[in-house]
Amino acid sequence: MVSSKITQKDQVKHLLDSYDYFLFDCDGVLWLGDHILPYVKETLTLLKQQNKSVIFVTNNSTKSREEYLKKFEKLGIEGITKDDVFGSSYATAIYVNKILKLPTDQKIWILGEKGIEEELQELGYTTLGGSDPELTKDGVEFHNDHPLLTNLDENVGCVVAGLALTVNYLKLSITMQYLLAKNKSIPFIATNIDSTFPSKGKLLIGAGSIIETVSFATDRKPDAICGKPNQSMMNSIKADNPGLLRTPKRGLMIGDRLNTDMKFGRLGGLDTLLVLTGIETEERVLSQPDDEAPTYYMSKLGDVYELLQ
Amino acid sequence: MVSSKITQKDQVKHLLDSYDYFLFDCDGVLWLGDHILPYVKETLTLLKQQNKSVIFVTNNSTKSREEYLKKFEKLGIEGITKDDVFGSSYATAIYVNKILKLPTDQKIWILGEKGIEEELQELGYTTLGGSDPELTKDGVEFHNDHPLLTNLDENVGCVVAGLALTVNYLKLSITMQYLLAKNKSIPFIATNIDSTFPSKGKLLIGAGSIIETVSFATDRKPDAICGKPNQSMMNSIKADNPGLLRTPKRGLMIGDRLNTDMKFGRLGGLDTLLVLTGIETEERVLSQPDDEAPTYYMSKLGDVYELLQ
Repeated sequence: MVSSKITQKDQVKHLLDSYDYFLFDCDGVLWLGDHILPYVKETLTLLKQQNKSVIFVTNNSTKSREEYLKKFEKLGIEGITKDDVFGSSYATAIYVNKILKLPTDQKIWILGEKGIEEELQELGYTTLGGSDPELTKDGVEFHNDHPLLTNLDENVGCVVAGLALTVNYLKLSITMQYLLAKNKSIPFIATNIDSTFPSKGKLLIGAGSIIETVSFATDRKPDAICGKPNQSMMNSIKADNPGLLRTPKRGLMIGDRLNTDMKFGRLGGLDTLLVLTGIETEERVLSQPDDEAPTYYMSKLGDVYELLQ
Repeated sequence: MVSSKITQKDQVKHLLDSYDYFLFDCDGVLWLGDHILPYVKETLTLLKQQNKSVIFVTNNSTKSREEYLKKFEKLGIEGITKDDVFGSSYATAIYVNKILKLPTDQKIWILGEKGIEEELQELGYTTLGGSDPELTKDGVEFHNDHPLLTNLDENVGCVVAGLALTVNYLKLSITMQYLLAKNKSIPFIATNIDSTFPSKGKLLIGAGSIIETVSFATDRKPDAICGKPNQSMMNSIKADNPGLLRTPKRGLMIGDRLNTDMKFGRLGGLDTLLVLTGIETEERVLSQPDDEAPTYYMSKLGDVYELLQ
């Protein structure tokens, strides 16, 4: 199937008639870094006016859902609630709790930022590592007698790894110790494995590349990956939206990445819409094999609103 | 061939008769971190008294040869000169200069520490990155508008990556930009790819695991690897020791790692001796396939001296 490009008012009307659930990737679709993209606000308002379900799905694990809400507010996007946001840190917390069934008296070692800590703590877990200032008080200076490296916590029952903007050699090395401990039996969960992290028009180091370090050092692969395109996040979304569970074809996944967003929607049985404001080009979209091509693509999300005027 | 264990005076005498060149890995063989192992000094003195050539070969790229000499002095090992030491940072500098033939008016971006900088600078190169305090002045705080990230140097003609104890997200992300620049054409050289770095009885993150991060993020593999077991280091050693070049079987490579030290000696046509003071166990030695087993193994290097008493 060749992707159809949406450029006409009629096509937009058909889109609005065809779907009840609109799932959005955020960065590259709604905004680029701290800049909201044109007519995004108007498009979201229009969808809400038509009683569409609007759901935000992001692999960025540095923010919790609470922090995401603040970002929406800051950019002037109103009326979003915590229940509308599914992040990979939330998906990870749900995975640890519901699938792994880790008892809450076991601690979790984190290679990552606050987003993961907050979501796990909300479910009653004690987290170690993460943004603990004790791990960065020497900056990037490494001391091999650091107490958190030499005295591992016996009660750590899970390692969660994601994007760590405050990564240093100490954090990586302690994570390595827990992954090697107890004959490599402590579960190793990744928030997502995106190799790159787009920021201000550049590709920076992604969660998957940070995770690759400790993976290579310990000869272990993550036991589970919770972000897009993994379906554990989709299953959570469907559990909250029974209509989508019954009729996935009434759902449209909108994103800027073929290998995460579009794959995520496709594997979940949804139709897909790629926007060209993020990482992909029209050339790349048109060169996809038929069974991996998005259902539709368009220049920018705001065209939904703009084309209707 | 099964490895023979050296436990008797006669065997040591036979060893001394059989070899003229003794190549040593350092950490795990001569010392563990800052502690010299028993009878190492006496063994090295004995070899020198018997006019043996004693050569030190290390994959640790954080130190230059000058810094290695200071370490030998500090541990009370005397009579070592810069020419006796072959480190992966030296091997890398030689590779960049002699094999890659990079003109010295091209700059080199470094993900690593002083050892690499010093060896490259000694050959006339200007280095960027590495231990530059500008890259760590914010500690582990990351700012995506850092001038070294936003303004790449057009004159960078090579990226060298090794063990970076002062790694942070900024260093990794700038390294990534150079690896992606100019359509991925800038040569990417690794000092070594050891996945782990033994320190005080623990396995910490090795050069290879740090390199894996930028490798995964850019979908590039290093164009060359300069440390053991790669033979470019062996070729440099042989060039300096024509007797070893003519008759490799008069050389013995002594080390604590099967997959680097023993492989390095074997590929170079030398006999090999594994000591059990480092990373391997007797069980591991005895379970090697015949063509990968070291020629000999012994409990510790100091047994050479001790067994002769």
